[in-house]
Amino acid sequence: MNPIEGHLQTRSPLHDILAPKGIAVVGASADPTKRGYKAMVGLIKGGYRGDIYPVNPKAELILGVKAWPSVSAIPGSPELALLCTPAATVPGLIAECGRRGVKGVVILASGFGETGPEGAALEREMMAKAEAHGVRIIGPNTSGIFNLHHNINLLALDNLKPGDIGIVSQSGNMLLSLALEAQHNGQVGFSTYIGPGNQSDIGFNDYLRYLGEDENTRVATLYVEGFRDGRKFLEVARDVTAMKPVVVYKSGSTEQGRQAASSHTGALAGSYQMTVDLLRQFGVSVVQYSDEILPVAEGLGLLQRAAGKRVAVIADGGGQATIASDRLAEAGLELAELSDTSRERLRAILLPQASTRNPVDVAGSSDSHPALLAECMRIVAEDDNVDSVLLVGMFGGYSLRFAESLLGDEMRGAEAMVDLSNATDKPLVIYSLYAPIKPPALRRLHEAGLPIYASIEHAVRVLAALGERGLYLAQQEKPLEQGASEPSMLPVPSMRAVFERARQEGRDLLEYEAKALLAEHGIEVPKEQVAINRSDLVAIADEFGEIPLAMKVVSRDILHKSDAGGVKLNLVGKAALAEAFDRIMASCHDYDPNAAIEGVLVTPMARKGVEVIIGVIRDPIFGPVLMFGLGGIFVEILEDVAFRSIPLTRYDADCMVEQLKAKKVLEGARGEAGVDKAALVDLLLKVSRIVQAYPQLSELDLNPVIAYPDGYAVVDARVIVEPGQSTTSP
Amino acid sequence: MNPIEGHLQTRSPLHDILAPKGIAVVGASADPTKRGYKAMVGLIKGGYRGDIYPVNPKAELILGVKAWPSVSAIPGSPELALLCTPAATVPGLIAECGRRGVKGVVILASGFGETGPEGAALEREMMAKAEAHGVRIIGPNTSGIFNLHHNINLLALDNLKPGDIGIVSQSGNMLLSLALEAQHNGQVGFSTYIGPGNQSDIGFNDYLRYLGEDENTRVATLYVEGFRDGRKFLEVARDVTAMKPVVVYKSGSTEQGRQAASSHTGALAGSYQMTVDLLRQFGVSVVQYSDEILPVAEGLGLLQRAAGKRVAVIADGGGQATIASDRLAEAGLELAELSDTSRERLRAILLPQASTRNPVDVAGSSDSHPALLAECMRIVAEDDNVDSVLLVGMFGGYSLRFAESLLGDEMRGAEAMVDLSNATDKPLVIYSLYAPIKPPALRRLHEAGLPIYASIEHAVRVLAALGERGLYLAQQEKPLEQGASEPSMLPVPSMRAVFERARQEGRDLLEYEAKALLAEHGIEVPKEQVAINRSDLVAIADEFGEIPLAMKVVSRDILHKSDAGGVKLNLVGKAALAEAFDRIMASCHDYDPNAAIEGVLVTPMARKGVEVIIGVIRDPIFGPVLMFGLGGIFVEILEDVAFRSIPLTRYDADCMVEQLKAKKVLEGARGEAGVDKAALVDLLLKVSRIVQAYPQLSELDLNPVIAYPDGYAVVDARVIVEPGQSTTSP
Repeated sequence: MNPIEGHLQTRSPLHDILAPKGIAVVGASADPTKRGYKAMVGLIKGGYRGDIYPVNPKAELILGVKAWPSVSAIPGSPELALLCTPAATVPGLIAECGRRGVKGVVILASGFGETGPEGAALEREMMAKAEAHGVRIIGPNTSGIFNLHHNINLLALDNLKPGDIGIVSQSGNMLLSLALEAQHNGQVGFSTYIGPGNQSDIGFNDYLRYLGEDENTRVATLYVEGFRDGRKFLEVARDVTAMKPVVVYKSGSTEQGRQAASSHTGALAGSYQMTVDLLRQFGVSVVQYSDEILPVAEGLGLLQRAAGKRVAVIADGGGQATIASDRLAEAGLELAELSDTSRERLRAILLPQASTRNPVDVAGSSDSHPALLAECMRIVAEDDNVDSVLLVGMFGGYSLRFAESLLGDEMRGAEAMVDLSNATDKPLVIYSLYAPIKPPALRRLHEAGLPIYASIEHAVRVLAALGERGLYLAQQEKPLEQGASEPSMLPVPSMRAVFERARQEGRDLLEYEAKALLAEHGIEVPKEQVAINRSDLVAIADEFGEIPLAMKVVSRDILHKSDAGGVKLNLVGKAALAEAFDRIMASCHDYDPNAAIEGVLVTPMARKGVEVIIGVIRDPIFGPVLMFGLGGIFVEILEDVAFRSIPLTRYDADCMVEQLKAKKVLEGARGEAGVDKAALVDLLLKVSRIVQAYPQLSELDLNPVIAYPDGYAVVDARVIVEPGQSTTSP
Repeated sequence: MNPIEGHLQTRSPLHDILAPKGIAVVGASADPTKRGYKAMVGLIKGGYRGDIYPVNPKAELILGVKAWPSVSAIPGSPELALLCTPAATVPGLIAECGRRGVKGVVILASGFGETGPEGAALEREMMAKAEAHGVRIIGPNTSGIFNLHHNINLLALDNLKPGDIGIVSQSGNMLLSLALEAQHNGQVGFSTYIGPGNQSDIGFNDYLRYLGEDENTRVATLYVEGFRDGRKFLEVARDVTAMKPVVVYKSGSTEQGRQAASSHTGALAGSYQMTVDLLRQFGVSVVQYSDEILPVAEGLGLLQRAAGKRVAVIADGGGQATIASDRLAEAGLELAELSDTSRERLRAILLPQASTRNPVDVAGSSDSHPALLAECMRIVAEDDNVDSVLLVGMFGGYSLRFAESLLGDEMRGAEAMVDLSNATDKPLVIYSLYAPIKPPALRRLHEAGLPIYASIEHAVRVLAALGERGLYLAQQEKPLEQGASEPSMLPVPSMRAVFERARQEGRDLLEYEAKALLAEHGIEVPKEQVAINRSDLVAIADEFGEIPLAMKVVSRDILHKSDAGGVKLNLVGKAALAEAFDRIMASCHDYDPNAAIEGVLVTPMARKGVEVIIGVIRDPIFGPVLMFGLGGIFVEILEDVAFRSIPLTRYDADCMVEQLKAKKVLEGARGEAGVDKAALVDLLLKVSRIVQAYPQLSELDLNPVIAYPDGYAVVDARVIVEPGQSTTSP
């Protein structure tokens, strides 16, 4: 059973609100500096075909439309009302709207929860009215909405083109920036925009669900500063990414940025890397830079997904072929190794000085015959070793640069590329240095739905997103045993009792209890014995024999065992054990005279290997999250760790191990043998299932686990108990 | 004495060649598809005012200009000839040109060294003629040149605007791309472009020197795939960066890219990171992405350098303030901490909901008064804690977005920003989401020489480049003892003898000899003793006393001592020493029965500390280079190392230590004390001076050096001797 269940049950109520048959503009105005004027202009100029009800007690007509003195006075029942009036008027207006049959209101005013206790009280009053009258709220403190396929443009933004990119943005400036970029690009259009504002009622998760359902939206694009219910967001994202691409830009990637963000919205921004890992786990395309948002959304919307990461590059200049190769490698993509057949076919049509090894550099072959580039693209697209094709160079500009007489050939090349894009299931990504000029051949490609990029960097980001999406969807579509969650575990009564006892005693699990929990669920733990008295050591020594042993104090009161002198290592023989026992008792007593000491844990010294760490937290935003990383400085200094939402699939666990920058260490660096990755993957999956089975478990820390070429050793284990969580719950 | 000496001695001969009074176009043509036509059009349409001599035996007139049957037939003495004819004609034409007084030729033809042995022979023949006749060569295999301030445009590129950015690019497509980008930007113009081609005669270093001297060039911009004489390039770069900014984009940043590059030009691309470190050492502004070249060159050309890395951000939207903060942190810049006075002054003019903590978010305060942003910029520019100012948001678009009536106020704001930029010595970097639209206020800023960026990412790259350049120049301008090279060292006769002996014996220095070399020049090395016989150990044991000792074999034939069983650790007492001696002798004999074994080296075990590595190579491209990094996985897996050209200044050594990603480890991670950075800096400087003093030293490896809170221990030292290098040379 999978706790992230949330299928799209009912159709989102936002469809009615965002495609209303009538709109009331409360605070409509004839003063061009007012939002109540702008909104009216947006609706009228935008050609909104429903009823417009300007509400303004002081006007008869606004921009030629009959005005009404109040919402109550409106004759019809507009589904949507835009409130342009001050915060204090909002609760009363919502009640009035509700009585008039308004289903949703967009509230522009600020002055609510974001300003302090007084505003928060007003926000509560607003919400109470909304609930009482069945009115849904977008905002308050929102920049507004548009829905271009219904000619609704409450922001009155000029030059917006209807299209298939839906946007939710916590920053109004970001929306403006995307709109201007799209205008400039000339190709990209938008479906719906929503500024979520304070999200008092409707939040990110609902908006994403709406964009998922909206048939005019092909790509959902989100600018996010922080999530509230991150786990729910992941649920919705999983459903939506199965249907269409979801592009997220998350700000606050650095500590400095996080501080700036929290002073802005007060949102709990959380750890950037964790957020990104979890979003990607559920198929979201995360972009790193704000200027990548639109190029990536455009590419994901227009192009086929790639089956993998092997890219063939066709270039008409060696320099840009090199640059493309650099960027591909940085983005985690590979240069496809072309088959001998492909190279032969290329050689047959290219000049001798051309390089037919990927990146293919035609080296002048296309100077008087630009359509040759389309032939090259076809050859590599037909190669089974290739997942996607990148064209790099001056295509579209041959007739400008060399001779006008080339225009015909260049247009035939464009036509051939269009044909190829229809014939192949591999994406064709085109970078042209003539993109800003938009010559005829590029316009033709544009018209046929092939995006043209003006930056190699952006073209490569698109290829990476297409490859990641392809691999993600391929996993999702695999049969259950591979792609889906692992089978769940049932909690064991004896272990529930251990949790219950710990909870009653107000403590966490003792180390041996934690290890018993692991062992109970099939995780290999080192043999170990608890000695309560010094005299127990004789039998223990006999059992282990003459091998080096470690001894650790067992005490609910001593968290940092080493600091208390509670750990002795490399003990061989009975005498050494006895002496260590005495020393541990003495120094732990010195450390904390009141500590209750249960005894000591004796275990064989772990062999040398690669230190890894597995941690689990129940994140307030995202719920249970598993972290995996290499030990020591890798975690603490380099922050080279991977996060996944629990439960993990096998694919997730595989990816966690592969994702680490230092994975070369796992694979056997410096002449050492590599570790048993399969055993680690298995361990991660079992930990994930234990966390699911025991809601009493609040945090878990296996640190270190020593990984070997043949398995692993869990050297230390800590389990923190959820306070007050009863074990009798299922 | 500083081996990087190369001051600009004489004026570059390129000035005459690139600003000629007459130009011969050999292979001039009336066929629009030929380069010989394009070049004629470029000269005529470009308004070249000198004499044009088309050379074509079959034409009387070309494009209305009298043609000549051969170079010899030309009546005047053009300084420059463009050869558009095939490779085979080139040597003969050069001789003819030389006789006619031509100083330089631009050779477009390919088919020389880049194609194989036959072409290489032709290239040699060409060079012989050039030397015999005193003709300098640009190319062959070049895309051409332009010099817009002299109306010379041999590429016949349209829409080029004269300006102050000079370009040398190994990729013709890159030049085209920059030209189209500049055309689109509308503000940026170029001085000279040179395609270096095969660099058979004139190379990168000469072109950079020329751009440094050229008074029409304010910024030298280079696209480089690989260097030939990298050390000479660094010399020239040091001279040029003292006068004007030098921007370099180096391709081949990844292994994949390097492979692509070498199949393209056959240039030795070297390690990307080393190249970048060395370029930065000499003040070059290295950009990481090709689409940053023009924005950074524009910013460095127009704006003042920044005194440091503390940036004040003024934003009219919280989202973009956060994005800017993220990017600043990633670029190694800091958010300046504004003084209380500044924050008070800001509070006085902003709405209560504004954030006056950097990033300053005016939060609506400028909605009806955009000129307020200029006031905010002035306040933070006057703050001593601030080195540069970044404006982020929609300035320029207020009158478009809110109300036309704001245009006057917005223009006053632009005027105030222009005044501020003239009054302050701090750079003002402006990002506007309206940059692509170029509204009047932004056009005004543009006219006044303030660049406007359409991407936050690019704006931040410019700030980083301005800060780096400012810090670099400040160091250069410091008095000798701080900024300049450290005093040099003289070689010691006894050490020269050690090198000479090793050279004669065809071996490298033995470990104790290497350590003696270090000790001789003031580097602290652990006390150590060589035992030739087992009996020597008694006295050694007495001298060291009862502390743990390490023993290592001394043999010219055993490079990997551990592999040979030639290292024993943690030896305490005479018996242990004796036993270790026997074991080492036995296993080294087993390992290599023919190895000559000098004895063993006995030294105290090093205390635990932080492992670092210091290495020196004499790079074939860049000459002697010092590498510094943390030991073990940091070097081997993470490649977290810093490089500097020898000799190092103290500033260089400081920067090496600060530059490491893992420098937190040096500063005391995981509760450990930090190490003595000053001692490490001193060690780096001494190593640099030793390398200068001994040309016999080919490579050096101190691995590991253990760094402590109080000094360091050089645990192992290797010195490779330059074969055949006589010690009698100075």
